[in-house]
Amino acid sequence: MSSIKDVAELAGVSVKTVSRILNGFEGVSERTRAKVQEAMDRLEYYPSAAAQSLRGKETGLVSLITDHLTTTPDAFEIVAGIQSVCEKRGKLLLIGETGGSQESFQKLVEDFRRQRAQAIIFATMYHRKVEIKQSFERCPLILLNCFDTDSRYPCIIPDDEQGGFDATEHLLAQGHKRIAFLTLFEHMPATSLRVRGHLRALEKHGIEVDPNLITEGVFDDSQDEFAGLEALLKELLKGPKAPTAILCGNDKMAMRVYMHAIQLGYRIPDELSIVGYDNYRMIAENLVPKLTTVSLPYFQMGELAAELAIDGPAEKEKGKRNKRKNNHTIKIGGDLIVRGSTGFQ
Amino acid sequence: MSSIKDVAELAGVSVKTVSRILNGFEGVSERTRAKVQEAMDRLEYYPSAAAQSLRGKETGLVSLITDHLTTTPDAFEIVAGIQSVCEKRGKLLLIGETGGSQESFQKLVEDFRRQRAQAIIFATMYHRKVEIKQSFERCPLILLNCFDTDSRYPCIIPDDEQGGFDATEHLLAQGHKRIAFLTLFEHMPATSLRVRGHLRALEKHGIEVDPNLITEGVFDDSQDEFAGLEALLKELLKGPKAPTAILCGNDKMAMRVYMHAIQLGYRIPDELSIVGYDNYRMIAENLVPKLTTVSLPYFQMGELAAELAIDGPAEKEKGKRNKRKNNHTIKIGGDLIVRGSTGFQ
Repeated sequence: MSSIKDVAELAGVSVKTVSRILNGFEGVSERTRAKVQEAMDRLEYYPSAAAQSLRGKETGLVSLITDHLTTTPDAFEIVAGIQSVCEKRGKLLLIGETGGSQESFQKLVEDFRRQRAQAIIFATMYHRKVEIKQSFERCPLILLNCFDTDSRYPCIIPDDEQGGFDATEHLLAQGHKRIAFLTLFEHMPATSLRVRGHLRALEKHGIEVDPNLITEGVFDDSQDEFAGLEALLKELLKGPKAPTAILCGNDKMAMRVYMHAIQLGYRIPDELSIVGYDNYRMIAENLVPKLTTVSLPYFQMGELAAELAIDGPAEKEKGKRNKRKNNHTIKIGGDLIVRGSTGFQ
Repeated sequence: MSSIKDVAELAGVSVKTVSRILNGFEGVSERTRAKVQEAMDRLEYYPSAAAQSLRGKETGLVSLITDHLTTTPDAFEIVAGIQSVCEKRGKLLLIGETGGSQESFQKLVEDFRRQRAQAIIFATMYHRKVEIKQSFERCPLILLNCFDTDSRYPCIIPDDEQGGFDATEHLLAQGHKRIAFLTLFEHMPATSLRVRGHLRALEKHGIEVDPNLITEGVFDDSQDEFAGLEALLKELLKGPKAPTAILCGNDKMAMRVYMHAIQLGYRIPDELSIVGYDNYRMIAENLVPKLTTVSLPYFQMGELAAELAIDGPAEKEKGKRNKRKNNHTIKIGGDLIVRGSTGFQ
């Protein structure tokens, strides 16, 4: 690695002169500046960020710890949102993945803090509860797509209840009265929140709930999470009490429902309306007809987390309130994207 | 931020003792170690990586510059492969995205070099040529999913020609003689290489080429890249010279071909075999029947790039050969994944 001494020597000036230029002082001739720049280019000399950070300047590093985000594309937009803000604000993003292990989390926190990251964002693949054992009194921690039991840290989560409400209200407005809801796994916060929104919409519009229409659409099968979907649909769609519309737990599931429904002879949306969740565009825009779905606001969630990480909200408000009260839950609503898979009944 | 002095003070020992513990020296009693550890925990003290890096130790940082990778999920597995190796090798991954601008590339290179990253990986969203203006004599640069005109840097690319060959040979082995190839844009290296592999397989098996069967399946439409696909398929599938199998430029396109073909009344694979490209599992495994496709070895490519970045191949071989010869192109082949969308003719 080249040093400032090498630069000075090659340029034929003193170390002090090079240092003055690097630190932005004036009073150095253009000719000398040019000579020093040329020497830096030839030697590939880059001033050390580490040295600057030891002198107390900001490191410009924002760090992201994820559980499985970088190994699955499901919640990819979260990373994209964070990266987009880091780029705009001139910050570098450090990322690390725990693979779900608490030990790796601890190791990454140590590594990031040794790198003097300005803040740490912890993002999970799906909306869930997490347990944070470390202390983050001196380094802001922002929880993204997850929340801690004690509400000690600011957390940003999707407004799943509103999503379930909006999707259901859209179908009700189209005249559907029998709406099936094929949910993700019951134990997931997203599932219970969306079901709550769904029930609230039914109640608002005076539609009686048929519990047979609300059921898990995912299966405990390591090879194929939708293994039982075809049988489930055949059962669900027969008889006079068959639904005219189906809400799906995500767009992947909606895609499978399309395939089975078409093969069972249903025309979408004329005979069966289908709504997805996620607005996973690769799927939603390439199904025919295109899929009506609720967007998961992952990109915006990522953006907001990065902004909190960079601006350090807790610091700003420190004077006003006590720490515990500063830390709040921010719910971000998705949009209902109406495409061709839903129609009037 | 807490300092080593704060730790020493709280633990009631000398700065030298804390320093001895941090540097792994022996000859400090367990009781003293415990007191110091407790003080470090309470003060959230983490030794500075910057300080260590200034003392000449490795920073443990690997850096990744992408063009659009973090804002689109298409080549996501590249990031996952890099991250996976960094995790195993105890390195942290720094990422930055250029959005396609040369200026941002230059800025990121500067930032990463100021952070003393051990190596820089530059990865592109699709297989293409890039121009590198900076000098990387003193910091390894690895090109991933792209190549430079002068072959100055090691580059890792997918073996697209082999992919086109394998997919075609699979269909030929099933008795298909009229195979359509709906390609990605003609100007992309992946397209010409895969067509070359396709033609080589046809030639090997003595099948005459019908140029009408090879055509772009993507369209210059900012709203919908497959806007003209339905019309194209209707035209292609009519008449006695209609293909019995279709190779698609990627899995997204294959998904659209499924939807249109089913709606045109074709049964897959009985009346029409379909092959995708990418093994984008979210699509390939959720179509019914599941999609036969060629995997893009993005994960493996990412892994290899990270290994080269960490182990610095050029450094190792410096003595043996001259620099220019060290830098080579590594082609990684994907696998043909046979699922239900292809069948005997």
